[in-house]
Amino acid sequence: MNEPLSPELLRKMHAYWRAANFLSVGQIYLRDNPLLKEPLLLEHVKPRLLGHWGTTPGLNFIYVHLNRIIKQFDLDMIYVAGPGHGGPGVVANTYLEGTYSEFYPAISQDEDGLKKLFTQFSFPGGISSHVAAETPGSINEGGELGYSLMHAYGAAFDNPDLLVACVVGDGEAETGALATSWHSNKFLNPARDGAVLPILHLNGYKIASPTILARIGHEELEALFRGYGYKPYFVEGDDPQTLHQLMAGTLDQVVGEIRQIQSDARANGFTSRPAWPMIVLRTPKGWTGPKEVDGKKTEGSWRSHQVPLANLAGDPSHLAVLETWMRSYRPKELFDETGRLVTELRELAPKGARRMGANPHANGGLLLRELELPDFRDYAVDVPAPGTVVGQATRIAGTFLRDVMKLNMAGHNFRVFGPDETESNRLSALFEVTDRAFAGELIEDDTQIAPDGRVMEVLSEHLCQGWLEGYLLTGRHGFFSCYEAFIHIVDSMFNQHAKWLKVSRKVAWRRPIASLTYLLTSHVWQQDHNGFSHQDPGFIDHVANKKADIIRVYLPADANTLLSVTDHCLRSRNYINVIVAGKAPELQWLDIDAAAAHCAVGASIWEWATSDGEPDVVMACAGDVPTLETLAAVDLLRQHVPDLKIRVINVVDLMALQSPNQHPHGLSDGAFDEMFTRDKPVIFAYHGYPTLIHRLTYRRTNHQNFHVHGYKEEGTTTTPFDMAVLNEIDRFHLAMDAVDRASRLGSRAEQFGQEIRDKLADHARYIRQHGEDMPEIQNWKWSA
Amino acid sequence: MNEPLSPELLRKMHAYWRAANFLSVGQIYLRDNPLLKEPLLLEHVKPRLLGHWGTTPGLNFIYVHLNRIIKQFDLDMIYVAGPGHGGPGVVANTYLEGTYSEFYPAISQDEDGLKKLFTQFSFPGGISSHVAAETPGSINEGGELGYSLMHAYGAAFDNPDLLVACVVGDGEAETGALATSWHSNKFLNPARDGAVLPILHLNGYKIASPTILARIGHEELEALFRGYGYKPYFVEGDDPQTLHQLMAGTLDQVVGEIRQIQSDARANGFTSRPAWPMIVLRTPKGWTGPKEVDGKKTEGSWRSHQVPLANLAGDPSHLAVLETWMRSYRPKELFDETGRLVTELRELAPKGARRMGANPHANGGLLLRELELPDFRDYAVDVPAPGTVVGQATRIAGTFLRDVMKLNMAGHNFRVFGPDETESNRLSALFEVTDRAFAGELIEDDTQIAPDGRVMEVLSEHLCQGWLEGYLLTGRHGFFSCYEAFIHIVDSMFNQHAKWLKVSRKVAWRRPIASLTYLLTSHVWQQDHNGFSHQDPGFIDHVANKKADIIRVYLPADANTLLSVTDHCLRSRNYINVIVAGKAPELQWLDIDAAAAHCAVGASIWEWATSDGEPDVVMACAGDVPTLETLAAVDLLRQHVPDLKIRVINVVDLMALQSPNQHPHGLSDGAFDEMFTRDKPVIFAYHGYPTLIHRLTYRRTNHQNFHVHGYKEEGTTTTPFDMAVLNEIDRFHLAMDAVDRASRLGSRAEQFGQEIRDKLADHARYIRQHGEDMPEIQNWKWSA
Repeated sequence: MNEPLSPELLRKMHAYWRAANFLSVGQIYLRDNPLLKEPLLLEHVKPRLLGHWGTTPGLNFIYVHLNRIIKQFDLDMIYVAGPGHGGPGVVANTYLEGTYSEFYPAISQDEDGLKKLFTQFSFPGGISSHVAAETPGSINEGGELGYSLMHAYGAAFDNPDLLVACVVGDGEAETGALATSWHSNKFLNPARDGAVLPILHLNGYKIASPTILARIGHEELEALFRGYGYKPYFVEGDDPQTLHQLMAGTLDQVVGEIRQIQSDARANGFTSRPAWPMIVLRTPKGWTGPKEVDGKKTEGSWRSHQVPLANLAGDPSHLAVLETWMRSYRPKELFDETGRLVTELRELAPKGARRMGANPHANGGLLLRELELPDFRDYAVDVPAPGTVVGQATRIAGTFLRDVMKLNMAGHNFRVFGPDETESNRLSALFEVTDRAFAGELIEDDTQIAPDGRVMEVLSEHLCQGWLEGYLLTGRHGFFSCYEAFIHIVDSMFNQHAKWLKVSRKVAWRRPIASLTYLLTSHVWQQDHNGFSHQDPGFIDHVANKKADIIRVYLPADANTLLSVTDHCLRSRNYINVIVAGKAPELQWLDIDAAAAHCAVGASIWEWATSDGEPDVVMACAGDVPTLETLAAVDLLRQHVPDLKIRVINVVDLMALQSPNQHPHGLSDGAFDEMFTRDKPVIFAYHGYPTLIHRLTYRRTNHQNFHVHGYKEEGTTTTPFDMAVLNEIDRFHLAMDAVDRASRLGSRAEQFGQEIRDKLADHARYIRQHGEDMPEIQNWKWSA
Repeated sequence: MNEPLSPELLRKMHAYWRAANFLSVGQIYLRDNPLLKEPLLLEHVKPRLLGHWGTTPGLNFIYVHLNRIIKQFDLDMIYVAGPGHGGPGVVANTYLEGTYSEFYPAISQDEDGLKKLFTQFSFPGGISSHVAAETPGSINEGGELGYSLMHAYGAAFDNPDLLVACVVGDGEAETGALATSWHSNKFLNPARDGAVLPILHLNGYKIASPTILARIGHEELEALFRGYGYKPYFVEGDDPQTLHQLMAGTLDQVVGEIRQIQSDARANGFTSRPAWPMIVLRTPKGWTGPKEVDGKKTEGSWRSHQVPLANLAGDPSHLAVLETWMRSYRPKELFDETGRLVTELRELAPKGARRMGANPHANGGLLLRELELPDFRDYAVDVPAPGTVVGQATRIAGTFLRDVMKLNMAGHNFRVFGPDETESNRLSALFEVTDRAFAGELIEDDTQIAPDGRVMEVLSEHLCQGWLEGYLLTGRHGFFSCYEAFIHIVDSMFNQHAKWLKVSRKVAWRRPIASLTYLLTSHVWQQDHNGFSHQDPGFIDHVANKKADIIRVYLPADANTLLSVTDHCLRSRNYINVIVAGKAPELQWLDIDAAAAHCAVGASIWEWATSDGEPDVVMACAGDVPTLETLAAVDLLRQHVPDLKIRVINVVDLMALQSPNQHPHGLSDGAFDEMFTRDKPVIFAYHGYPTLIHRLTYRRTNHQNFHVHGYKEEGTTTTPFDMAVLNEIDRFHLAMDAVDRASRLGSRAEQFGQEIRDKLADHARYIRQHGEDMPEIQNWKWSA
């Protein structure tokens, strides 16, 4: 093994690492005496010891080595920390390089700052044990595991000069999300994109048991990563001096290889997918910590996972071990009398924005450029009269997205994501201007796929979500289309991103980023190809649990409203937008001006479908199929019960239903009462589970009169209209309910009910015989 | 290549495969003329063509070959079909082997049965395009992809004589869940467990684009599976005759290897993890289908994914292509004049329960044996008086689970699952009688881990869930403990399992299986080690969207109620039980008899905490922390406002709140009104998002007077009590709300309010200074 580090540099880097380790231990344990100027006493120690030591020395080791190569090669690099609870390490390093104090001036570069740095960790009102939105340089929360590598790739896409170092924990590597993330290299184009350097950190244990990848032997481990398409380098051992040299030499090698891959591809164009280098770093868990505690092996064991010495109050020997441990880093050599890192170590860190804590890519709002947007009105369906022409909402939206893609092609800052469903979801106009991205082998029969495509398709909702998050967090724009039922696969990732957004709004130095926008289609009412397994509209409920200032939900009823909503979402910042829209050919209701006006207010009375005067009944709807069925019900009622006065309300922005003190989009109580009346029955046809409408309207005056029809978990393989019937959200059930609730009709109601029941029986007979819906259903148009 | 199949057997197997393909195409297209006795006319074709052809011929090919080795080696084998929409193939094969007609006599073995078989597919009221609960021999829905291999391993655990053939789709293989499933071999013990034979079916395309694994080249593909710990065999090509011989020879080889591995391990005990064989089968997508349609390549292309000829009504040439295609299978040679499979082909299928459609493991309720359960009362915490002794609920439950484990050790039918959190969740008593299961390398420092352990720990909620589903679906029992926030990772898997249960209840021949029971702990109110990312109680909301006859949710407030609930859940069938319980030391409320009585009714008045006479205010609670805070609030109120009459209600079975017509556990309206009153204010402290309580009690008389405190998404790194304060579910806020709502207190209420605000200010000061909760909070006990 050659020795790339001079003895001098080796000495300094080792000291820098000791400093980071010292600060990490200090954060876990101390609230006072941060430089150990005095003998350590119990009163210097926090009352509650919370935090995680195990992974931290490895993270610190990597950080100091990355600092060296950043300086050596003038790299534009960010650091993604995947292992759980690596917070103390990343915080320590950003403090040492100065960025932490720049973002948080109270945590100053002196003894007082050190004391605050230590105290705030896992302390009420302080910072969490894992990397989070508050951590400088971070784009990946270290709480829920598994998303580091997909975030890293998302950051690297369209950032040709960026090198994303991604530390993957060996516990994290067991998650499904991470296990498929390695395949992201099949979607990375070295001519156009930046690079990801995965560093698998094998420290052997999760919370309490060994990790899989630490226990499969060298041969399988190497084969696995070669199989994933990487060229693995192994840095293994426990002697720091040896490992410093090995790590430095390996990093010189891999950075050289990455640059070679990139310069080849940029000179000659993409030819074939390279084997990108990656590093396997195997070091002891809790490296440099106490070898033994209470006679039990601690360094290199799962006992180092959290706080290796926890019984400080009860066992004086523990306090002594802690003091010995902390003094083993020789803090006096690292920090001067005032508590500042000594000059020769300060000089090891990169400068300015090259510091990983200060790299603007990790505070993407700083780099965010406005998306160029065409006028969505130019894509409008011509709707001369409501309910007479048929259009395909997502197909129309696809033409708009196509031109968004086209206008921003040169900007390299817009991509569309989806699990192999772009075509199925009718967004195929995108393929007129770009392709699917793929860096694997292509053959003659492949169509609409190329290494420089900008549509990201992979049969993993996790990867779509994670790539997109990484792309957005580094200051770009995107759009995610997905089957409605299967978006639940990323429920937990949604949670984490929503939490990140909530927290980052309160972090003063984080600049707003583009919103994450979902288009959920192939929805619950359009699953005739599939069955019950594809029917679940519950993602909206899941979303509605999150903070109102983060969440927007839209249910456009037709193509023009979808256009308006899509335009609005692409302009928004720091939100998660959920759009649910149909992909099937459907009747169109609003011309583009009416659509835009309707979307601006969120919910409105559709006057053209509404009777004059005070209504007997309000018929409200949200969602494309509920809107169609509501208007068909109104049509039925007009024919059969012509003197029933009906008001039709359509809701496109679901949060308009909430009180304005619960959601910023909420209609004022006055406007709500004006619209929904204070006392008339409201038959509400809603796309999803009915309870959500009750929940949103809970505080409204007329809430007790809301009768919501929606999905009742009655799914099966059947026609679209029969799905509506099974869940009693079809025109017949809606009309019958309206008549039943509008009390004054007497025997007319009974007669009407019998007619409706006959119609339902006709329907049942017809579909059993013909396998499709009755022509009168399929061909119905609005004729008022 | 040797030729293991005699010409005669080869001819027959090929014919059998043709028959399966013919029936598959028939299901997608036809509603009449099933044997093509007449020329094919448009009227024989279904009006809506729905279904998926692409993966089907491969599934059929595998099935006929597995039939052969089942007979040859007398194998006990089930078939897990992973690729999406493989329904027609599995249905066709179970029909050919006779099981389909046994389960569904109307689908008889004659022309009339064939006609019905064809018509029902993707037809209203019929069967879905993917494998489902209705499909004989299935334990894996083919709708949402990614779970086949984890289901297969779950089935193989503790089934030493079972060989689970698992076809993994190459699209499916891109999902996170599947990508980590390959590592399940590190948890399989050949001495004790059965075997899984993964067959990766590379047919090149997903819906519209190539799959990753089809495009990484042979070398990487082989390395990947060697890295995953398998010994891959490749069966590749498009000539059926060649592939029949190759597949047969390969299956002979791999079955031999599997038996060798098993006999070695069973003779000598487990020594080291073997490299289990697996097969990579690469065949054209839509194999044997039309080579071209409209001049475009179809067989071997993504165009074969769904219905390769869709325009039958509009283009007569399509009808002709379809007829030629179907006649290419030479149905006259396959079926006799009555429509029955000819005798020489019928004889190819295994007999009786050896048929994969009839294997009882795929209808696990048939094999289900009762769990031996100790008397949960024997584990009770002694509670001489409410709220005076401290206990740790999950630690106590751990002792009960330990003895469940012990009693059923010989039965080999109980396992506990969790993502590396058994110890963290305080279930460590289990390790007194068993270990974690692991077949990877073990070293000296490892503890409580062994190849024959029965606690399944892996840092993947997906694997825990999928293994457990597979284990339950094949007739065994299990228990899943998980951090509450991260159970959202399997939201979508939960959905699919709930849907499976709902459907299988209606499938007459499916016998009830053991319920899937979650213990969610390390919950939202106990995250001082962690932070906001670990705080999410929304899984209950997600669960509550599913059908009431499947779902049970329990919030035991202490150890004895947890014991009673756990016992109940382990006895239940066909449910999904969610138990949320704390792991921290907490005050205990009920002795074991009171706990059992309380759990039996689901919600009851806690008389010992309730004032005599008509209440001024009802204080209700559900969950351990809400219960503690409610009782502490009652204590405060007694001291400060002694004449306020308070009724305390605890809810342990959340579904008791719903109306009995919505959930079978719902209290009658009379009992509910009796308990919650018809008109008194109800201050309800609830573990999760408050809206759920409104939603559940929506139809109750007194609903308008419910004031629910719960999690408001105000999470951070802080003390447990401060978390309660941030969300206003702490004793101070609850007491203040009770006083505010109980109108008659006048100026006393104002004074009390001021006292409470002072206390909150004290609290805030104290934790900022000390980093922990005030002693009066930490040490509070019930003293009434």
